[in-house]
Amino acid sequence: MKTLIKNVYLYNKTVDILIKDNLINKISDTIEDKEAEVFDATNLAVLPAFYNMHAHSSMSLLRGFCEDLPLFDWLNNIWKREATLSAEDIYNGTRLAILEMIKSGTVFFADMYWHHSEIIRAVEEMGIRANVGICFMNSLGRKTIEENFDFAKNPTITKPSLVSLSIAPHAIYTCDKDLYKECYSFAKKHDLIFHTHLSETQKEVEDSLKENSMRPVEYLNSLGVLDSKTLLAHCVHLSEKEAEIISQNGATIVHNPCSNMKLASGVFDSRQARKYNCKIALGTDGNSSNNNLSMIEEMKIASLLAKVHYLDSEEGNSNTVFSWATKNGAEAVGINAGEIKEGGVADLMFVNIDNEKMQPNYNIISNLIYSADTSCVDSLMCDGKFVMKHYYVEGEEEIIEIAKRYK
Amino acid sequence: MKTLIKNVYLYNKTVDILIKDNLINKISDTIEDKEAEVFDATNLAVLPAFYNMHAHSSMSLLRGFCEDLPLFDWLNNIWKREATLSAEDIYNGTRLAILEMIKSGTVFFADMYWHHSEIIRAVEEMGIRANVGICFMNSLGRKTIEENFDFAKNPTITKPSLVSLSIAPHAIYTCDKDLYKECYSFAKKHDLIFHTHLSETQKEVEDSLKENSMRPVEYLNSLGVLDSKTLLAHCVHLSEKEAEIISQNGATIVHNPCSNMKLASGVFDSRQARKYNCKIALGTDGNSSNNNLSMIEEMKIASLLAKVHYLDSEEGNSNTVFSWATKNGAEAVGINAGEIKEGGVADLMFVNIDNEKMQPNYNIISNLIYSADTSCVDSLMCDGKFVMKHYYVEGEEEIIEIAKRYK
Repeated sequence: MKTLIKNVYLYNKTVDILIKDNLINKISDTIEDKEAEVFDATNLAVLPAFYNMHAHSSMSLLRGFCEDLPLFDWLNNIWKREATLSAEDIYNGTRLAILEMIKSGTVFFADMYWHHSEIIRAVEEMGIRANVGICFMNSLGRKTIEENFDFAKNPTITKPSLVSLSIAPHAIYTCDKDLYKECYSFAKKHDLIFHTHLSETQKEVEDSLKENSMRPVEYLNSLGVLDSKTLLAHCVHLSEKEAEIISQNGATIVHNPCSNMKLASGVFDSRQARKYNCKIALGTDGNSSNNNLSMIEEMKIASLLAKVHYLDSEEGNSNTVFSWATKNGAEAVGINAGEIKEGGVADLMFVNIDNEKMQPNYNIISNLIYSADTSCVDSLMCDGKFVMKHYYVEGEEEIIEIAKRYK
Repeated sequence: MKTLIKNVYLYNKTVDILIKDNLINKISDTIEDKEAEVFDATNLAVLPAFYNMHAHSSMSLLRGFCEDLPLFDWLNNIWKREATLSAEDIYNGTRLAILEMIKSGTVFFADMYWHHSEIIRAVEEMGIRANVGICFMNSLGRKTIEENFDFAKNPTITKPSLVSLSIAPHAIYTCDKDLYKECYSFAKKHDLIFHTHLSETQKEVEDSLKENSMRPVEYLNSLGVLDSKTLLAHCVHLSEKEAEIISQNGATIVHNPCSNMKLASGVFDSRQARKYNCKIALGTDGNSSNNNLSMIEEMKIASLLAKVHYLDSEEGNSNTVFSWATKNGAEAVGINAGEIKEGGVADLMFVNIDNEKMQPNYNIISNLIYSADTSCVDSLMCDGKFVMKHYYVEGEEEIIEIAKRYK
């Protein structure tokens, strides 16, 4: 299968791009290929599509469900509502989330939830990538924990698929050390990503110091569960030593600025993490604490938050933040995407430079981060196939009609 | 002139709304009126349109011009570029800004710039409201200052118009006390709004303490130039006493969170301002320090910033922030808008509830602030007339073509 993208802006020039199967085959001033399907990209700019490295996609059904409450009141309300969600709800919620992600230029999400077969079904139907996290907590009970491991051995993934799995112990306050070790050893045996929440709140740090005499990262490190296939969501409250540990292990920090601000968790110390050369990627977290899945907005807020936190307008540099949202995420899950280069995976976003927020076009990365929103995302290609063309996603009307039932 | 809006969501119910001339005449379950032009608002929700209370609209031409620099390097670059802008550039830049504002649901902006007749021309052509600030600085020289006052006496406003003027001494570091007093006395004589930047940076506070032995608000108060027709842009660094002075004078603080974060100026103390019952409104500031004019995004960032700043998820409450962006701004300039009520001015935004970011619809205000972006704004009515219908603004293609010349 070949697609020929004609007349697309690539930074400061207009080029043609040939996509063969799922790869960028050739980038040149002019390409002709009679076998290829042509996509006229006049007035569109091509950019790497987004990798959303921490999400709870089906929580899209809880968008706006309860707001502006103290953290534990909010959590109690959310947990009660979550307990009522059926397998079908999870499927519907995931589809709504994927629609939102496609519309905002995201081709991949690292998820963490339950009813995994429903999430996988939604992802495969809609044609984007996901790393679906099998969520573990001691409170699930031994039977469900075993079932989860069984599912991870024989997942309902249709080969070939853009879906992979992670083993995702929820957090240090919901999983004991034996469960963490069991999860990690399973992940290693089956070569899966290891994904966990870590150091999200000050309370988590204080509790860990009390219970383990160690800070959260030190504690997980002492269990030997951190390595280069680990995603650590949040990492808001890190000591210098913890940043160093993460860097030495090669784990990826997933920064979720909107969620950390909305839930008043605190400010991730990106300057410290960069000082220790930690790998940093970006995520939206779930819709109930954001409340959208736009990586464009997440980039702007990440950048502005860093600038005001350090009172330094050079922090949160746009090129750095753009890497967090694209290349760094792809690298963390071993996909050769996040850059527009020959041989790279064709995960591509097409941005409408005729949108009023994209002009003047001095610097497209800066316009994308500081000015754009989802109205600028015209088309999206995942693994060489279009999942949105000119603002239209197949089946979107049905997804919205079903979402309207929830309120 | 009458417009009948059929089947529109008003919070939790579907109603019809009759607009007569520029006012909301009637809100009822069903209205029939054979003389009225009908607007079918099925699947749209009506909300008060936004009042952007601090902008430099023509700076839209400088969007992305230079980024992520230390404040004074950035300012020097901007000032050099600004010095090259012609009257025609100002007209083109203002039109681009107004297009962006209309597309994001804004019907009013309080501006501060030069080439005022060009700004007024752009506003009148495009049909929204503005309070155009005549900007004063000592460095302009006596001749230009006199010309500015002359213009303010006989502005190029076509009656009837939605344009009003303000007298806008730039800031305490660019205007001396005599110029402030002269500006204020002119504003009082001609019943105009008084608009100034105040307490934007810590440096401004320190310099004022050195030069005037008073903090910035105390200093302007000592000159007697603060009252209920004053707009104070920024107010990032206020003491308790300064918050009290602003409250006692009835001046309106215009909070510009994106700009304050991007330029690393600091965090406006909204909790303190609310404690003293200060009037608070919201603004985007200019495009070069934001870099867009979306009040939807400004609301989200205002709310999240307050939550994380106070580490309190109840701060930046969505209803409070929505008032900052609508009603409070309208009140500050004496327009009976900002609420959907019979007798109110018909400044109305129509939001597409079929947008993927607006579902589920538990709470439309929360969805608008925390999830929506400009892709959700379907139509906009200003003073009883549509300035955008179903995402289309008359003449938008030409504005974009002209904007593309700048880079």
